[in-house]
Amino acid sequence: MSAPAAGAPSADPARKAGTIAIVCGGGGFPAAVAEAARAAGQDVLLVGLRGITDEAIARFHPEWVRLGEIGGLLKLLKARQITRMAFIGGLTRPELSELRLDWGAVKRLPEIARALKGGDDHTLRGILRIFEEEGLEVVGVDVIAPALLAHVGVLAGAPPDAQACADLDLGLRLLDSLSAYDCGQGVVVAHGRVIAVEAAEGTDAMLLRVAQVRENGRFRARGRAGVLVKAPKRGQDPRIDLPAIGPATIEAAIKAGLAGVGVIAGRVLVLDRAEAFARAAAAGLFIRGVAP
Amino acid sequence: MSAPAAGAPSADPARKAGTIAIVCGGGGFPAAVAEAARAAGQDVLLVGLRGITDEAIARFHPEWVRLGEIGGLLKLLKARQITRMAFIGGLTRPELSELRLDWGAVKRLPEIARALKGGDDHTLRGILRIFEEEGLEVVGVDVIAPALLAHVGVLAGAPPDAQACADLDLGLRLLDSLSAYDCGQGVVVAHGRVIAVEAAEGTDAMLLRVAQVRENGRFRARGRAGVLVKAPKRGQDPRIDLPAIGPATIEAAIKAGLAGVGVIAGRVLVLDRAEAFARAAAAGLFIRGVAP
Repeated sequence: MSAPAAGAPSADPARKAGTIAIVCGGGGFPAAVAEAARAAGQDVLLVGLRGITDEAIARFHPEWVRLGEIGGLLKLLKARQITRMAFIGGLTRPELSELRLDWGAVKRLPEIARALKGGDDHTLRGILRIFEEEGLEVVGVDVIAPALLAHVGVLAGAPPDAQACADLDLGLRLLDSLSAYDCGQGVVVAHGRVIAVEAAEGTDAMLLRVAQVRENGRFRARGRAGVLVKAPKRGQDPRIDLPAIGPATIEAAIKAGLAGVGVIAGRVLVLDRAEAFARAAAAGLFIRGVAP
Repeated sequence: MSAPAAGAPSADPARKAGTIAIVCGGGGFPAAVAEAARAAGQDVLLVGLRGITDEAIARFHPEWVRLGEIGGLLKLLKARQITRMAFIGGLTRPELSELRLDWGAVKRLPEIARALKGGDDHTLRGILRIFEEEGLEVVGVDVIAPALLAHVGVLAGAPPDAQACADLDLGLRLLDSLSAYDCGQGVVVAHGRVIAVEAAEGTDAMLLRVAQVRENGRFRARGRAGVLVKAPKRGQDPRIDLPAIGPATIEAAIKAGLAGVGVIAGRVLVLDRAEAFARAAAAGLFIRGVAP
């Protein structure tokens, strides 16, 4: 990579003005987003959360804060004259009592407590608002690394057959109905039947369950059957936890015996795209991006 | 038990006229329903499905048929002058190719094939219709053994607190929204957050998952938290697969760390009631029957 060190001023006029701070949750997303951003000429400063963020982000020369150090993070951004930030990656909802709150956080305790009640979206939106109220612009992957978003069309494998298209469509409608409840962003539908609905367990655990219900006979079908459908909630803020797929998702979908995967184009992230698409195609699974 | 042998004409005028045939799916429900029916003075003839029905129903002197022997079953009912029947217990959806179809079934192949496409409800409704078209009256547990249905009020434990009531209410609304998709009849909601949604895996597997997400930190709460909510789908035919709880459900809810269980009164079965209520109360879980 030829990108400059994190936070260094950019001399390339094609680059968007200013560094974007990426507050990194768990998993491999933050690194993937940082890579893609730098590849596109966007300067980023990674901020790791101690005990949460994968330490492999070290190669991006990150800053580290503790979860709850809102005052410290604000000070750090101000010192670096950073006005744009993003929250990328998973975050297990902490108990209020587990947070290492600094004075900047204590001042905002009512907002934090309110944010922690309710669904994941509600929590993240509340936290975003705290930073916006400090004058920071919070952006999403669509701004930092749009190349990571799924595009429209058959992305891998052969086009889905009529049954798979119908299953995909039913899954999208179901996810839309679930939007109001701020629970999952994934379902599995097969032959017109809802096989699994994702909530707190996450997509990979849901797919493992689909493999199990096929094994124990609660869902029976010959050959590859069923579609994993992933979509953001209706009206979801794209700066918050967009659904994502990657090679691990495809691997789990293969083991679940699915026919394919459907995602909303422009609103679902595809990590390690070449690898994910190659695995799907090799196993005979389709990946389809549906126009929003 | 002093009930007469299955199918024997009843001499007790207090008994409802005629024997009801109970076509038995898997699990312990059919036996529980048969017990309760006989205890209430209702004659029943159990019909076991080979390879599906628990062989412990032998004590009820059942008849046995194979799944797909529709003609045989109709002949059997006619020979016994039985005009009322019920379908009780779980049934793994068979592949059409696995059915042992007799001529009575082959004649109805288009109806059977149509029934097998779509959700569980759709399948069962289609099968019911085949028997109704032969002049049989299909009844539900509410007719055979109403004593098995949950009643209104706090059935076990202390009354739920405000948070549990709110969770129960959110769960009921979510299940109502899911009604159109013919998937599950159970959800777990905790502190305003949807933790798990039931589909093909069944309630016990869902509760095991809740225990897992508490263990792996995807859902964190101190002490007992969250409510298992079970309700039939909106407009569900009460003759079809009513949701049920029993001691095993309560045991799984205890292991999942839940605060309680909420069900719709008159529309959810409670198996082995005394045992289920005692276990809940001993562990500090509430069971609440909500007016429909």
